[in-house]
Amino acid sequence: MAELSRRRLLGTGAVAVGGAALGWGAGAALTGREAQAAMPVVPFHGEHQAGIATTPQAHTTFVALDLKPEVDRSTLVRLMKVWTADAARLTQGRGALADTEPDLATSPARLTVTVGFGPGVFRAVGLEDRRPTWCKPLPPFVIDRLEQRWNDGDLLLQVGSDDPVTIAHALRVLLKGARETATVRWTQRGFRRARGTEPEGTTMRNLMGQVDGTVNPRAGTEDFGQLVWNDGAAQPWLAGGTSVVIRRTHLDLDAWDELDRPGRETVMGRRLSDGAPLTGNAEHDEPDFGATGPGGLTVISEFSHIARARSADPRQRFHRRAYNYDEAPAGADVSDSGLIFVAYQADVDAQFLPVQQRLAELDMFNRWSTPIGSAVFAIPPGCREGEYLGQSLLGA
Amino acid sequence: MAELSRRRLLGTGAVAVGGAALGWGAGAALTGREAQAAMPVVPFHGEHQAGIATTPQAHTTFVALDLKPEVDRSTLVRLMKVWTADAARLTQGRGALADTEPDLATSPARLTVTVGFGPGVFRAVGLEDRRPTWCKPLPPFVIDRLEQRWNDGDLLLQVGSDDPVTIAHALRVLLKGARETATVRWTQRGFRRARGTEPEGTTMRNLMGQVDGTVNPRAGTEDFGQLVWNDGAAQPWLAGGTSVVIRRTHLDLDAWDELDRPGRETVMGRRLSDGAPLTGNAEHDEPDFGATGPGGLTVISEFSHIARARSADPRQRFHRRAYNYDEAPAGADVSDSGLIFVAYQADVDAQFLPVQQRLAELDMFNRWSTPIGSAVFAIPPGCREGEYLGQSLLGA
Repeated sequence: MAELSRRRLLGTGAVAVGGAALGWGAGAALTGREAQAAMPVVPFHGEHQAGIATTPQAHTTFVALDLKPEVDRSTLVRLMKVWTADAARLTQGRGALADTEPDLATSPARLTVTVGFGPGVFRAVGLEDRRPTWCKPLPPFVIDRLEQRWNDGDLLLQVGSDDPVTIAHALRVLLKGARETATVRWTQRGFRRARGTEPEGTTMRNLMGQVDGTVNPRAGTEDFGQLVWNDGAAQPWLAGGTSVVIRRTHLDLDAWDELDRPGRETVMGRRLSDGAPLTGNAEHDEPDFGATGPGGLTVISEFSHIARARSADPRQRFHRRAYNYDEAPAGADVSDSGLIFVAYQADVDAQFLPVQQRLAELDMFNRWSTPIGSAVFAIPPGCREGEYLGQSLLGA
Repeated sequence: MAELSRRRLLGTGAVAVGGAALGWGAGAALTGREAQAAMPVVPFHGEHQAGIATTPQAHTTFVALDLKPEVDRSTLVRLMKVWTADAARLTQGRGALADTEPDLATSPARLTVTVGFGPGVFRAVGLEDRRPTWCKPLPPFVIDRLEQRWNDGDLLLQVGSDDPVTIAHALRVLLKGARETATVRWTQRGFRRARGTEPEGTTMRNLMGQVDGTVNPRAGTEDFGQLVWNDGAAQPWLAGGTSVVIRRTHLDLDAWDELDRPGRETVMGRRLSDGAPLTGNAEHDEPDFGATGPGGLTVISEFSHIARARSADPRQRFHRRAYNYDEAPAGADVSDSGLIFVAYQADVDAQFLPVQQRLAELDMFNRWSTPIGSAVFAIPPGCREGEYLGQSLLGA
């Protein structure tokens, strides 16, 4: 991850990120200015949009918007220019151009703003021929119980930060900028462990307590680049961009509670304590799907989640960046929890779809997890200073 | 705040809180076990409940519950024993007694669990004579636009932590424990800046960008003790306890946007940049309400928020511990934001009520802030090991 401390960006370079440890108890010794200076900042400009290869922040809010009927290419270009200018400033700890609360902008805490285009964008601007073939709703799966209120959308705003106040401020600025152009369709608020709770690089646990996301390409590697960044072969404007699939997945914690620990581990194929495959000793050990136990059965059930998710085709992989959700329970319930499943891949049909189809057909875990929302967006490449997000599509 | 690192609690004492700086970039150098050991833990047992004098955590969720009709004293005692046992373990980083996801309990991140009793508790257990006279809904104020869904409640669970995953887990455990006894009435999720974003002790800003909460008694001082902890004179069982008023206050950010910076500062009586009174140079300078400007008018308007909130009677003060809220916007709105105003005081009628009445009568800020929910709870004292929360009321 290219993450620089603000002080380094500002050119003084006196303190590197690792050295500027802003600790639990040490905060009191820092002045406000020092604390800000030590705050890591994620660069906005670049070949790819930030917020994808970025180590997941503690909080990310996903907002889908619907374009107003009268929107055309010039209106959308105007919005993209506004969003680009605001995101470029906010992510670096500066107030937006017409920021009415600039005092809330000073602590970006790794703020990233990522913009996506749903199928409706291509219709609205008369560029249907530039829509990637996979940029459309996923086909229905037998496991789906989709609710319209969590589906689809014309535009995606993905706003992540380690600080929830920063997200609230940035989102309001960006949505005010879109007021004339689009209305909010859905909002999904996700969270992980707070920054500093666990060592960097720890795989997250979801609210079922499972280590979730072990098999993921490592950001910065060639493998990651090939799986995630689109090469522009089919749609030249998308070179350096990607796609995102967002599946809101309700987790039935009450039913999961009834399952004992060995049962849960059989369902997933991994140990709960550390996420190691049932045939291994550590989280990142390669599962041995052929290994058999005393009764002659495979140690990892062929119907387990990790067995069904695995493909012999190395192309059937993607980059997961999921978040937990936990909403106010209704009626007699004591929780309404789940996972905002988020997957980035160069090509949805070639990489994501076969895996999802295999899991929908058979996966022991389906009994406890239910997709209730689904959306697909094309993510345009990043932009350089002076350019705007989406320019390779809208400006050509 | 009496906050100890877990390692210190465990008796090794090798690293004090300040030394065990778990920094932004330094995390990678720590093993999971070390990271946990360095995680500050707030003691559960004590004279007072935790979560009141505790430096506010980044996240706090307030849940009000309604007792089921059949609940009597013995049922409630059982619930209090379960909550006490679970909170005593969870806050120290241990799984609850029947924890189905103990792997989520290892990072308390200053987890506190605070329990309160609404008027319904005293009715249900036949102890109306032990209800503090102020333990009832506040009288109506002309500024109120209360919605039933945010009002009142028989029981309060206040769960705070710097880590949102910890809160989700702890809340689920505690609400499962209450399943037979009570149902959720409302849930309010509040947030402040992430821990580490700002130096410890920084006064929070609300989502209007105002420095909010400058005038607050300092925890640990005699002043704080006299204002917050009940002396038991009226109700002996409440000695060491307190009260909490929770007012959900919608902030009209759209209308606030239309006001320029000097206008905003006039409304509040404080500078936006640093929270200093308009007659001062620094946040904690004493406002000079008599100082006049060139036109002969007072520099701080007598109708400003800080002028109206101030009383000549030093008893008309309380301990504020507010949180921001930011929910998904509806319709054409771009935000649904506000403040969970939270005030602790030994006596609601003597301390909180006169201030609220004065502000309701006249406060320029009322135009932009609207109370939409209101609840009052008595907070029983803390408990020692072997005791349970509420024992001085229910056990005698």
